[in-house]
Amino acid sequence: MNLILILPTEIKPENRVQLTDQRAVHIRKVLRAEAGKSIRLGLLNGPFGTGTVQAVSEESVSLLCEWEADAPPRPAIDLLLAMPRPKVLKRLWAQFAALGLGRIYITNAEKVERFYFDTHVLQPEFYHARLIEGLQQARDTRLPEVNIVRNLTPFLRNAEFAGIGKRIIADPSGTQSILQCMESCTESSVPPRCCLAVGPEGGWTPSELDLFRESGFELFGMGSRILRTDTACIGLCCMLAEILRKGV
Amino acid sequence: MNLILILPTEIKPENRVQLTDQRAVHIRKVLRAEAGKSIRLGLLNGPFGTGTVQAVSEESVSLLCEWEADAPPRPAIDLLLAMPRPKVLKRLWAQFAALGLGRIYITNAEKVERFYFDTHVLQPEFYHARLIEGLQQARDTRLPEVNIVRNLTPFLRNAEFAGIGKRIIADPSGTQSILQCMESCTESSVPPRCCLAVGPEGGWTPSELDLFRESGFELFGMGSRILRTDTACIGLCCMLAEILRKGV
Repeated sequence: MNLILILPTEIKPENRVQLTDQRAVHIRKVLRAEAGKSIRLGLLNGPFGTGTVQAVSEESVSLLCEWEADAPPRPAIDLLLAMPRPKVLKRLWAQFAALGLGRIYITNAEKVERFYFDTHVLQPEFYHARLIEGLQQARDTRLPEVNIVRNLTPFLRNAEFAGIGKRIIADPSGTQSILQCMESCTESSVPPRCCLAVGPEGGWTPSELDLFRESGFELFGMGSRILRTDTACIGLCCMLAEILRKGV
Repeated sequence: MNLILILPTEIKPENRVQLTDQRAVHIRKVLRAEAGKSIRLGLLNGPFGTGTVQAVSEESVSLLCEWEADAPPRPAIDLLLAMPRPKVLKRLWAQFAALGLGRIYITNAEKVERFYFDTHVLQPEFYHARLIEGLQQARDTRLPEVNIVRNLTPFLRNAEFAGIGKRIIADPSGTQSILQCMESCTESSVPPRCCLAVGPEGGWTPSELDLFRESGFELFGMGSRILRTDTACIGLCCMLAEILRKGV
């Protein structure tokens, strides 16, 4: 835990907060904070700030919060991911938030098993806690927006998603690399957002690839190695963040 | 399993192989191979090849193997990783092999707990199977060489390690990005090997960083986000592979 995140609903009058969960334990046992000490805080989807410890007990820690004026920007990367095996997705949530994603679209695809969508791993009560864990690891306050897309075709054709930005899709048929694909963005203009699409274990079907192309997605490949969905997702999100960071 | 790997010790006279483990199950149930069918094979640390199915039973699959002349090259990336928590390393082995590493150095560091080295996760009988799993995922035959480095200082000062190639180290104090760090390599000359050093959860100490600098390592940073060791390792190895692939 590299940042203590406070939810807006936890703030009481006069900017006071009382913590009783893992965060209180962390403040007591890892930070060893006593009354009077200042702690770096983040307000979920809001600014960073400082918490001055008012009281520490076995059960709770009370803080007086002060928030900075501006919230950090929402990460400029969106991930559109064909629903992986629930066991795999379970482990990915925290890493997604840590890597810095603006929006996460978990979509259906022809090679995705229908029953994958019945998992509790797709319930907000499950992934919300994992996302916050990732934000607290990476020291960010911006919770990724999660959208479950049951039907890919109308979603991609919808004008609302069409919006602005760069769109790229990973597929073994892609002849250029992600670096070549993003070259125009690193040299001169940085796109307002970049959406990365990653397919299911069995890959996208030709008709799905056509649909993505029609929706403005550029294909890229990753060489001859076949990576697991989680390995590919982490590697590509990390790479995209570095490419955009360099461009800024 | 995207490639069936055969160990040299499994090859019997006249290039015959009899499989009785998960690979036999995969050939029967996933590939649904019957006698006469050809299957893509790899010889561990050797060439790719073809296996013609001779017989299939509940217990075993017999193959007649034919090997290509040349083995794929050893991946040009080496990873020097400060020993992470055993639980984390356990999950990383297969991904390391899948991402494509030539050598893996698991090292001690000032902020690594000594007892981490007592784990069974560092035993060859444990990691060998995981590495092979990763190779079978990524369709490679080159087993990464694993070295456990109990004492970092003499290891880095040793002339044998000094050898050729590019050396880079991830640290929050690095002002350039990995892309900038590798720029010279992508434009003109590709280094024979690249060694990436990744620190422990608490980071490298100033004296360790000095030691790495003296050993020719260039520092790079990854922005303000703090990533877990496993997230950073996967992201960086993936990125490095793409950078070197583009340069070739």
